[in-house]
Amino acid sequence: MTDFFNGITPIKYEGLDASSDLAFRHYNPDEIVMGKRMADHLRFAVAYWHSFAWPGGDPFGGQTFERPWFGDTMDLAKLKADVAFEMFDILGAPFFCFHDADVRPEGADFAENTRNLEEIVDYFAQKMESSETRLLWGTANLFSHRRFMSGAATNPDPEVFAWSAATVKTCMDATHKLGGENYVLWGGREGYETLLNTDLTREAEQAGAFLSMVVDYKHKIGFKGAILIEPKPQEPSKHQYDYDVATVYGFLKRFGLENEVKVNIEQGHAILAGHSFEHELALAASLGIFGSIDMNRNDYQSGWDTDQFPDNVPEMARAYYEVLKAGGFTTGGTNFDAKLRRQSLDPEDLIAAHVGAMDVCARALKAAAALLEDGALEEARNARYAGWDAPENRAMLTSDLAAIEARVRSQGINPAPRSGRQERLENLWNRFV
Amino acid sequence: MTDFFNGITPIKYEGLDASSDLAFRHYNPDEIVMGKRMADHLRFAVAYWHSFAWPGGDPFGGQTFERPWFGDTMDLAKLKADVAFEMFDILGAPFFCFHDADVRPEGADFAENTRNLEEIVDYFAQKMESSETRLLWGTANLFSHRRFMSGAATNPDPEVFAWSAATVKTCMDATHKLGGENYVLWGGREGYETLLNTDLTREAEQAGAFLSMVVDYKHKIGFKGAILIEPKPQEPSKHQYDYDVATVYGFLKRFGLENEVKVNIEQGHAILAGHSFEHELALAASLGIFGSIDMNRNDYQSGWDTDQFPDNVPEMARAYYEVLKAGGFTTGGTNFDAKLRRQSLDPEDLIAAHVGAMDVCARALKAAAALLEDGALEEARNARYAGWDAPENRAMLTSDLAAIEARVRSQGINPAPRSGRQERLENLWNRFV
Amino acid sequence: MTDFFNGITPIKYEGLDASSDLAFRHYNPDEIVMGKRMADHLRFAVAYWHSFAWPGGDPFGGQTFERPWFGDTMDLAKLKADVAFEMFDILGAPFFCFHDADVRPEGADFAENTRNLEEIVDYFAQKMESSETRLLWGTANLFSHRRFMSGAATNPDPEVFAWSAATVKTCMDATHKLGGENYVLWGGREGYETLLNTDLTREAEQAGAFLSMVVDYKHKIGFKGAILIEPKPQEPSKHQYDYDVATVYGFLKRFGLENEVKVNIEQGHAILAGHSFEHELALAASLGIFGSIDMNRNDYQSGWDTDQFPDNVPEMARAYYEVLKAGGFTTGGTNFDAKLRRQSLDPEDLIAAHVGAMDVCARALKAAAALLEDGALEEARNARYAGWDAPENRAMLTSDLAAIEARVRSQGINPAPRSGRQERLENLWNRFV
Amino acid sequence: MTDFFNGITPIKYEGLDASSDLAFRHYNPDEIVMGKRMADHLRFAVAYWHSFAWPGGDPFGGQTFERPWFGDTMDLAKLKADVAFEMFDILGAPFFCFHDADVRPEGADFAENTRNLEEIVDYFAQKMESSETRLLWGTANLFSHRRFMSGAATNPDPEVFAWSAATVKTCMDATHKLGGENYVLWGGREGYETLLNTDLTREAEQAGAFLSMVVDYKHKIGFKGAILIEPKPQEPSKHQYDYDVATVYGFLKRFGLENEVKVNIEQGHAILAGHSFEHELALAASLGIFGSIDMNRNDYQSGWDTDQFPDNVPEMARAYYEVLKAGGFTTGGTNFDAKLRRQSLDPEDLIAAHVGAMDVCARALKAAAALLEDGALEEARNARYAGWDAPENRAMLTSDLAAIEARVRSQGINPAPRSGRQERLENLWNRFV
Repeated sequence: MTDFFNGITPIKYEGLDASSDLAFRHYNPDEIVMGKRMADHLRFAVAYWHSFAWPGGDPFGGQTFERPWFGDTMDLAKLKADVAFEMFDILGAPFFCFHDADVRPEGADFAENTRNLEEIVDYFAQKMESSETRLLWGTANLFSHRRFMSGAATNPDPEVFAWSAATVKTCMDATHKLGGENYVLWGGREGYETLLNTDLTREAEQAGAFLSMVVDYKHKIGFKGAILIEPKPQEPSKHQYDYDVATVYGFLKRFGLENEVKVNIEQGHAILAGHSFEHELALAASLGIFGSIDMNRNDYQSGWDTDQFPDNVPEMARAYYEVLKAGGFTTGGTNFDAKLRRQSLDPEDLIAAHVGAMDVCARALKAAAALLEDGALEEARNARYAGWDAPENRAMLTSDLAAIEARVRSQGINPAPRSGRQERLENLWNRFV
Repeated sequence: MTDFFNGITPIKYEGLDASSDLAFRHYNPDEIVMGKRMADHLRFAVAYWHSFAWPGGDPFGGQTFERPWFGDTMDLAKLKADVAFEMFDILGAPFFCFHDADVRPEGADFAENTRNLEEIVDYFAQKMESSETRLLWGTANLFSHRRFMSGAATNPDPEVFAWSAATVKTCMDATHKLGGENYVLWGGREGYETLLNTDLTREAEQAGAFLSMVVDYKHKIGFKGAILIEPKPQEPSKHQYDYDVATVYGFLKRFGLENEVKVNIEQGHAILAGHSFEHELALAASLGIFGSIDMNRNDYQSGWDTDQFPDNVPEMARAYYEVLKAGGFTTGGTNFDAKLRRQSLDPEDLIAAHVGAMDVCARALKAAAALLEDGALEEARNARYAGWDAPENRAMLTSDLAAIEARVRSQGINPAPRSGRQERLENLWNRFV
Repeated sequence: MTDFFNGITPIKYEGLDASSDLAFRHYNPDEIVMGKRMADHLRFAVAYWHSFAWPGGDPFGGQTFERPWFGDTMDLAKLKADVAFEMFDILGAPFFCFHDADVRPEGADFAENTRNLEEIVDYFAQKMESSETRLLWGTANLFSHRRFMSGAATNPDPEVFAWSAATVKTCMDATHKLGGENYVLWGGREGYETLLNTDLTREAEQAGAFLSMVVDYKHKIGFKGAILIEPKPQEPSKHQYDYDVATVYGFLKRFGLENEVKVNIEQGHAILAGHSFEHELALAASLGIFGSIDMNRNDYQSGWDTDQFPDNVPEMARAYYEVLKAGGFTTGGTNFDAKLRRQSLDPEDLIAAHVGAMDVCARALKAAAALLEDGALEEARNARYAGWDAPENRAMLTSDLAAIEARVRSQGINPAPRSGRQERLENLWNRFV
Repeated sequence: MTDFFNGITPIKYEGLDASSDLAFRHYNPDEIVMGKRMADHLRFAVAYWHSFAWPGGDPFGGQTFERPWFGDTMDLAKLKADVAFEMFDILGAPFFCFHDADVRPEGADFAENTRNLEEIVDYFAQKMESSETRLLWGTANLFSHRRFMSGAATNPDPEVFAWSAATVKTCMDATHKLGGENYVLWGGREGYETLLNTDLTREAEQAGAFLSMVVDYKHKIGFKGAILIEPKPQEPSKHQYDYDVATVYGFLKRFGLENEVKVNIEQGHAILAGHSFEHELALAASLGIFGSIDMNRNDYQSGWDTDQFPDNVPEMARAYYEVLKAGGFTTGGTNFDAKLRRQSLDPEDLIAAHVGAMDVCARALKAAAALLEDGALEEARNARYAGWDAPENRAMLTSDLAAIEARVRSQGINPAPRSGRQERLENLWNRFV
């Protein structure tokens, strides 16, 4: 045991009357919601990078956190892993997620990077034997190092493409070895800073080829998890190719990958793209590519990625309502891709932030489940479209314009608007959240 | 002749030394640019709705314009047409565009709407015999009337779908009859106000079926022009389905229409969607769906659709650079979907706004052409990707992750970043605009 | 009795077990919160314009509502008033608010406008004798009519200034006569569309002179209510002079009016200005100019003023926390400057929207009060600044740089950061909302 | 001479026919514009931090630049100074600007920081003897070090206030010693991350006291330059107190400092605050607090501070038009608070970026001057307000509402709207840019 979380004991569900700050008031893993354990619905994951690798800098300021494991040696990487697994235990976190660069020191070349990663993967595997925490997903960090400054798969330099492909292979191997349930690609540098030096056509072809190889490799090694793309419109790039769910869908269709790849949707990225989180979730479900979520918000008054822990229950309920409607998670889960505010220096802040977020999600899940079980909202929605259930109306979808015109004329169709009842549905919603 | 533009004579190209406000200083229709008449490059169109049908209201204020043709009779509709064609002549506008609702009074039912439209179409046809102005595109207004408040093709009420389909048929007939070069669909109400009452799956199916019928009908009647979708992210809907070019592309792929339908891209809509205009143009060209443009800007400090005439030459040059790179317009053109500010009450304002906008576009075109002919920018772009021309690198696009990893290891690939030279390219750009 | 709200009976508090949609589940007017009736805390007001005068149009669509009182006669204006007071009764609304243009038909000239207003004011006065609803504030609509298109007080045309001043006088008279508790100025056209035709200096002087006259007139007629400015950054103008609370404060200081005028803060306007609602409230309180609120939200994904009914309890709790910390309302109150979505056609929608909003506010108030009474948040805040309570530290605020430098040197001051505890405070917050 | 800019010789004005990339095509320092040398109008300054201290990181990526002077020793700091002054010479830059933290290594305590700063200031002074480059302004970096994470003047910890005050003293001393023409305060951490832990009232009092001491110290040491506040709405803080020009004005009025302190306005910050650059300039001039500018743009599609070199001449012309209308700079100037894109690795990029920016500004200045000398725009503006020159209209500004109402009635005032002519003025503008 390290002494980082000195004195902090595993968090328990204590209900609304809990006296301690560090207790679950709502997240009760074994409580049954819609026939399933709450823990199995929510499938919480801790993000290794924000919690253990982020130094607390921002564009105008340097490191604020002073963690005993900061540094570039394998020993420190193992100390970091020790602390991480201690936190997983404290939280009772069923899952974690990581990038290669979070967990191992950067080496001098590809071979050293890979050796470092493999050593840590073995260390993780060993720790996981005595831990209840599993791997939700692994991923490769193809954005932090300066070699990626002009892209990874979409780099004008084929050597960077090669490096990236080789790195993803090692990260997929690592994920597979650790029993990961998904493999994620977030293309932070797959985009452009200026069109003046960018060839969109070449870069899209590179990206398509790269993703196809990822899918092939998954099958080759027998990895059963899902491949997930994480959409984001911009930042760090001025414009990123995986802008939002609809854009990713078009990309997948273009390269024939829509049945092979799903999306990992982050609330903050949805907001940056001009969408609500629930829009992105509902759209992905409708298109058959819903995979997993990153449950961290952006500030509505800030124009960049603030990666904050969720704090608004009614908003989160909108998200879980869509997740439940989509049938719930299969391989996916609720990853907190959230970082402490850089002023939140204390180890206790790290625990408290997760505890609060898990409680917010639990409240949201319960509210969403209650409304779905109640059925009134779905009933109202279905009633609004009921006219389409009539065969003569349904038939219009495979008819032609001239025939429909003839029908309008002969039947004297002159539609009368009906209330959309938005406020009444919002009231209904508010009875559950 | 009406007396609306009393005393305003046709606008001539007079060059930089023009003394009048109402002269072209840059737009010289017959001047040859890259081997083609400037007029044939730009293919300017006047938008009937903003110039002749918009009363000058905004969300907090009513009508400011008092036009002698405002009202609901066929006689006034013909007076409006008279003034419109007078303005086309004054401007030497090669094209115009219209919606059904711009040109005819609203009738009591579908049959009366159609009769009114047909009568005006005949009146247009007659006027076009003695005019040099042709029809760039026609379209149906499926958003203003209250019957469309919950959508047209995507309405929960199948009767509205029927009405919309029948109306599009009549508008395609009208466009075809007038020799229109394109038919446009803008889905202002195809989207949602709240997810609570919306079924995304049903609505997408309805939209796909609708568009397929439009394409079928085009072929049935032998219309040779292009079918164009105009993307917009929101307003009037909170969220619209044709969000941006990438979203429309995904939709077309989903319904197998990507070879049948192209996009009409508006600068203002691009900006509302979080993109630059040139991004949307370059992307559409790259995806093979570039069609036409609406050349009207949004205010960068306003969050809604301000539909202003273009005024910034360097920005417009970015747009025409992409248009020229894409091979220029075929059926498409430059439509000013722009409205006067509501304080610009005078007939002269209407003429001056178009004259200024045409000059801005002409300057932009000439600058873009000069840079493209110079070749330095394309040379720099190609040089950046030159590594990909090597066969062993190109081969990676059809290789596999393990083979690439082996190559990275065996060749000791360790890529060194090279400058993206953005500022130097911006300087190069500025030598031409 | 009109038959508009046929069958809808006065809304009662029925608690969480209410069976009807149209019941208060949380708003219990007589319940005591922090020593005061809930109704006296919240001081709800219905906005006449949105509820009774707005036809349901948006920038791309016309009227959707068909109300029997729409039209331009005095008889219809009285029918509108009848329905309005019926709705006030149904809701048990303690207050309402109006503009002159909401309640009377537009006349041919100033005199007729005034006569129409006076006649309706008499009609209101008569109705108020038998109603429990009082006037929270009156105001003049100086933005809808085309005469105001270039501003009211800040118009380049002094005749518009004169008309506006005269109109405000009549509206202040009306407000005074009806026992209004405040008089509000919202400067929707006080701003500019383009700097090219605008003289900021002249317009600020005009605005300052105008407001000074309003304050003088208040004292002259013995009006005891507050004069309130309502900040908004833009829309309808591209830029409005009363951008936000800080801007209004600077304006008041400039013209020596900071003790005479307060602000009416709207959530939606705060958001458009890049602020949270609670920021604007806290700032106004800190500057001593907090007056009243418009409790209607904007959509976070839309860039214009959507004026929606509040629906998010935790957000509203932030607002009422600041209101309570500021000592609560004196003359001010909670005005729903909110409009139905234009698809919400039914009379029941109008009632339900208000009922839901009142319940949301009631929940928010109770949560905010509980947290304030608990004291833990204020305790944590005070502890953070406790160092400043030491006299030697407090003394620095009236010291000088050189002396402080000497102290830093002599005492070897080298400050150590302490956690800001943001997430832990967010958790604390979430225990109450 | 270092070898960093190996082979790059001083940039000369060569006019439009220049063959080299690295030549001025428009910036001709000795050319007379409106009776003054172009160099004396523009007063260009190089920003030390972005050009020499920024490592090229962004929120998702680390250092990309590898400069031989990066490191923490005094020797490296001097090497950095050598390169900086070489660049000033190459550019013929009349000015530079710096923070303490840009130029000296961070020490272990306040005393060491000050010693380091003083040593570098002496080194600068020595270099300036043989350089033509002077100091436009100095400033203290009160935001990068973790001690400032919760603010400097507004920190809850009085020790940070003390440290900050002492540091500003040393930076004012340094600026004074080097003959700086201004002293700037940018409050990147003067704001808040969450209202939950913030006391706005205390923090404003601290800020007011701090600024008053700065002003007092200026007078005490006989510094003749201007004290400038640089507004910014957010980033790094969620909300910063110096939001925009209007907010700073209100703050200065509150603490009686409006005649002592002016503003340094940055284009990028204006945009983040929802304003155009020209708005902020015009407003500051109108309020009498215009001081200096930071000429670096934000990307219109990005929601954070991108600090790019200016590239759009018409936009910059709007800015210089306001600067010229305000009488031009006195102590202020044009500082490029701009950084290379992080992919722009080469020394030549650094030179080229400045050369291009200086040319853009020179073109903009010439265009603005030509339009101002032409007079047509100011004439049109004055004509619009001409009604206010009539004494009976002017008198309304000191009249009262009742008297004005009487006038409206007796004269039958019924104002008729006149065109605002926006598009015609935009056309006029475009004849000059």
